Amino acid sequence: MPRPPNILWIGDATGHLQLLDQRQLPSCVVNLELRDVKGVYDAIRSLAVRGAPAIGVAAAYGLILAAQKIPAGEKTESAILRLQEAADFLNSSRPTAVNLSWSLRRCMTLLQKAPSVAVSKIGPMLLEEARAIHDEDARMCAKIARYGVQFVTPGAGVLTHCNTGYLAAGGDGTALAILYEAHRRGIPFRVFADETRPLLQGARLTTWELSQENIDVTLITDSMAAPVMAQRKVNVAIVGADRIAANGDTANKIGTYSVATLCHAHGIPFVVAAATSSFDLSLQSGDAIPIEQRDEREITRGFGSQTAPDGVAVYNPAFDVTPARLIHAIVTERGVVTPVTPENIRAVIEQNYN
Amino acid sequence: MPRPPNILWIGDATGHLQLLDQRQLPSCVVNLELRDVKGVYDAIRSLAVRGAPAIGVAAAYGLILAAQKIPAGEKTESAILRLQEAADFLNSSRPTAVNLSWSLRRCMTLLQKAPSVAVSKIGPMLLEEARAIHDEDARMCAKIARYGVQFVTPGAGVLTHCNTGYLAAGGDGTALAILYEAHRRGIPFRVFADETRPLLQGARLTTWELSQENIDVTLITDSMAAPVMAQRKVNVAIVGADRIAANGDTANKIGTYSVATLCHAHGIPFVVAAATSSFDLSLQSGDAIPIEQRDEREITRGFGSQTAPDGVAVYNPAFDVTPARLIHAIVTERGVVTPVTPENIRAVIEQNYN
Repeated sequence: MPRPPNILWIGDATGHLQLLDQRQLPSCVVNLELRDVKGVYDAIRSLAVRGAPAIGVAAAYGLILAAQKIPAGEKTESAILRLQEAADFLNSSRPTAVNLSWSLRRCMTLLQKAPSVAVSKIGPMLLEEARAIHDEDARMCAKIARYGVQFVTPGAGVLTHCNTGYLAAGGDGTALAILYEAHRRGIPFRVFADETRPLLQGARLTTWELSQENIDVTLITDSMAAPVMAQRKVNVAIVGADRIAANGDTANKIGTYSVATLCHAHGIPFVVAAATSSFDLSLQSGDAIPIEQRDEREITRGFGSQTAPDGVAVYNPAFDVTPARLIHAIVTERGVVTPVTPENIRAVIEQNYN
Repeated sequence: MPRPPNILWIGDATGHLQLLDQRQLPSCVVNLELRDVKGVYDAIRSLAVRGAPAIGVAAAYGLILAAQKIPAGEKTESAILRLQEAADFLNSSRPTAVNLSWSLRRCMTLLQKAPSVAVSKIGPMLLEEARAIHDEDARMCAKIARYGVQFVTPGAGVLTHCNTGYLAAGGDGTALAILYEAHRRGIPFRVFADETRPLLQGARLTTWELSQENIDVTLITDSMAAPVMAQRKVNVAIVGADRIAANGDTANKIGTYSVATLCHAHGIPFVVAAATSSFDLSLQSGDAIPIEQRDEREITRGFGSQTAPDGVAVYNPAFDVTPARLIHAIVTERGVVTPVTPENIRAVIEQNYN
């Protein structure tokens, strides 16, 4: 059974954006049909589409919907200003993942370099660029998979956290792309998927993705990672990233730092898989990465029931930062950074890339 | 507002057992009125009553309900055999906490030492013994609190896991009893409560208990303990125990081993609070402690929604074992074991006790 597309542009530049509503998985496979920027903003903000690479791709398509609203007689200069407003709005939907701003900036730079283009051509230009971002992301996923497959040894137990698969990206994903590649190569392994509180992306999305490909996956609560490691059932942990600072400090889904610390305590290599677009070399360390705080009801009223008293104080950061010293390797589409140092990061990112 | 009793025997030996249904907290404060052993078994098995000390107390009262069913003409010897069957049945409700078997064995030993007692006296004897177990547990909680309060320094941040308060015991609890004592003494501190997946005893019960006493408590997911520690907001972790081996290895709610490992990595003392009845000196180490495996639906269908695909493999141990080397101190009603060694444990347990 082919997997349902997570992000699909329907038609030409006058078309619309279809997103698989990830909030409803695994119970329902339902698409959102989006025809304006506000819809895309809401889809990103509410996690109907999530995963750092996927957010970047969806936002690029979202700009086309803004371009559709520009009146035919508008001057190019003011059209670009309108689009910049739309880009700023989309960029404000979530603060932590860097792919979102990277993708929007790329589209806007393209337009700013073409100040005399006819307004009627802006939509088709943006569609071409969004498709390029989407396709490049898919190719990056494939390259990450090939560089990362070395970390899945025959018979391995692999721990993963959150969802970093095809749902989260333009292609096969990041950490899960490595597992798909290992599976295609016939390497036997089993996966332990952290459920990933509060929003259960591991339980709802990762087990769903891996089960569809007949990959051996066992669901655990986040708190069970430690005993599973102590039982020597895990040989490696592989996770994704939302933003990586110049020194290798990595922001990723809340709970990742706990996994990395537990790996270190058990002598298990902790591996990050991410496209080079997830690096933010303007930040020297992870301290400077903005961490999104989310609604306390994600914890107190998740999934239909009240599970904490009214009015209780709640701390709900969506991400945490894992220091570089806990990371064995960062797998990118340009190669593997190991050990994780500022110099090695720069060397991998800046190399000639085909 | 006085807190609703968690375990209450109503009337004389012909009466019945009232249990606060902890499954329904914090949304509803509802009592179960139990009149037979099967009801008590189900209440323990389904976690309507939970917490190692509370289970022991509830089971002792449960034996009285079995005694009520003995026909008036029955011989004492066969009455005791019937009660032993009831005790074995109750003891099979949950395997990990040692208080359950300890409490039932104590009641049965009492009867076995009185083989010529009139059958009509068995119920009153058992009621007296259950009340004694209940009262002793309350006094033990108070003593644990006084020995443990040294670990709550002014301005401290205290992390706790699961629920170890009055709901879990005959008195104020174990780890939470220490916090109640510190609060009564006017020591300022704040608590971070792990929600404690899968059954959210931290979110549902601990925040409810502490909020009622106006203790400053912040709810976090289990995966947030590590970043809260990294932010230096936690100075000590205090948890309970379901069974402690002779070497100090401690079985407690799943997630405890993760907390202990994270404490070790952050240089934060990890303290266990437990009555000496939670020690099982017949077990040399934690490897021998039986770990209850629970229904996978606690993880895949918790709280009203399906949150994982049908048929996914799930690992759901209810407890894990924290090795003694990660435990800074074990606080008991007879004193504090630190460092945690077999010799120090034996010395504290075997000392003269008033």
